[in-house]
Amino acid sequence: MKLYDWQIAPNPRRVRMFLAEKDITVDTVQVAGPKDMDLSAWFLEMNPRRRVPLLVLDDDTQIGEAMAICRYFEARHPQPPLFGRDAAEIAQVEMWEREADNNCLQAGGESVRNSHPAFADRALPGYPEATPQITELAERGRMRYYRFLALAEERLAAVDYLAGAFFSVADVTAFCAIDFWRKFRLPITADYPRLERWYARVASRSSTAA
Amino acid sequence: MKLYDWQIAPNPRRVRMFLAEKDITVDTVQVAGPKDMDLSAWFLEMNPRRRVPLLVLDDDTQIGEAMAICRYFEARHPQPPLFGRDAAEIAQVEMWEREADNNCLQAGGESVRNSHPAFADRALPGYPEATPQITELAERGRMRYYRFLALAEERLAAVDYLAGAFFSVADVTAFCAIDFWRKFRLPITADYPRLERWYARVASRSSTAA
Repeated sequence: MKLYDWQIAPNPRRVRMFLAEKDITVDTVQVAGPKDMDLSAWFLEMNPRRRVPLLVLDDDTQIGEAMAICRYFEARHPQPPLFGRDAAEIAQVEMWEREADNNCLQAGGESVRNSHPAFADRALPGYPEATPQITELAERGRMRYYRFLALAEERLAAVDYLAGAFFSVADVTAFCAIDFWRKFRLPITADYPRLERWYARVASRSSTAA
Repeated sequence: MKLYDWQIAPNPRRVRMFLAEKDITVDTVQVAGPKDMDLSAWFLEMNPRRRVPLLVLDDDTQIGEAMAICRYFEARHPQPPLFGRDAAEIAQVEMWEREADNNCLQAGGESVRNSHPAFADRALPGYPEATPQITELAERGRMRYYRFLALAEERLAAVDYLAGAFFSVADVTAFCAIDFWRKFRLPITADYPRLERWYARVASRSSTAA
């Protein structure tokens, strides 16, 4: 199997971090260089969904979506569990991972892609035609992003990690998102002291080097 | 435990359909009437995420997000499996459910909520403050929606259901979305004959009455 990755992007980083937590090594191909602004033509041609990460199995099955790839490996290498161990944990992980995906990773992207000049006419990832920026989304995405940070701040009063007392893929998604978007004028401000401590806690894991 | 539901909305319908497939009965509360335009005040107060569906366990744990609720029940009642049985199936279900959630259920909602007069100042679900409509999103959401239909149409050339030869939550999400948004000027057109057959196939399941 082969993992198609783009070192600079936050979405595939989730998979790299997940694999590092599991100590799994996968043959990996970079789909573009670190200074490129778009995916390579050969990758766009082989993958109609036009997005990274992508896992291609030996029978040529394509698995897109970071969480689909992570679940594939979780099923084959259950230890350590990163999607929860029983019904209650599984539900908390799913809820918080979806929340982080929609309202942190995607919301940050919505804000940045609809305002940063580097994304002019590429406001949506994965589309071959021009997708013009919509100015109002810069603010709406930012509002959703900080609403997520506030929700996480409240949550972290009770527990050390988003899904509970244990580290999970919900933390992977939120960390990769926050660590990326903070470089694009979406910092963790002083209003989120618990989130800042959570960030430091996650950042200290060796998997964040992946 | 209690399931908080709103009979008219597509998102909680996913959970009802999932439970019907499993033949599970849960004590259910309607959070608003079928003619209401918004969730009841008592529900918004008890649920800071301000969205349905919501499952509240006997220890008061709140589980939001339709797929988190479904996974909770899948863990407790594995038969029939609706999230896949092995690593390859699990990955396909996750990939197609996420695709359907983002680019069919949410994209249709983005188009309709940013154009229909009923959603003036409520373009985003789950926010207490006014969220004004952004006119350009009506078209962008529609574009994403039909891109999903085209992707599904292509997929259904090879298999009977979105994740493969078996019915899964990916079909539940896509069906509940398409069945709802088709009433809001987002029909399955003649360009999608396989999708129309898939729709009839899913519609014939007794769980769609839920």
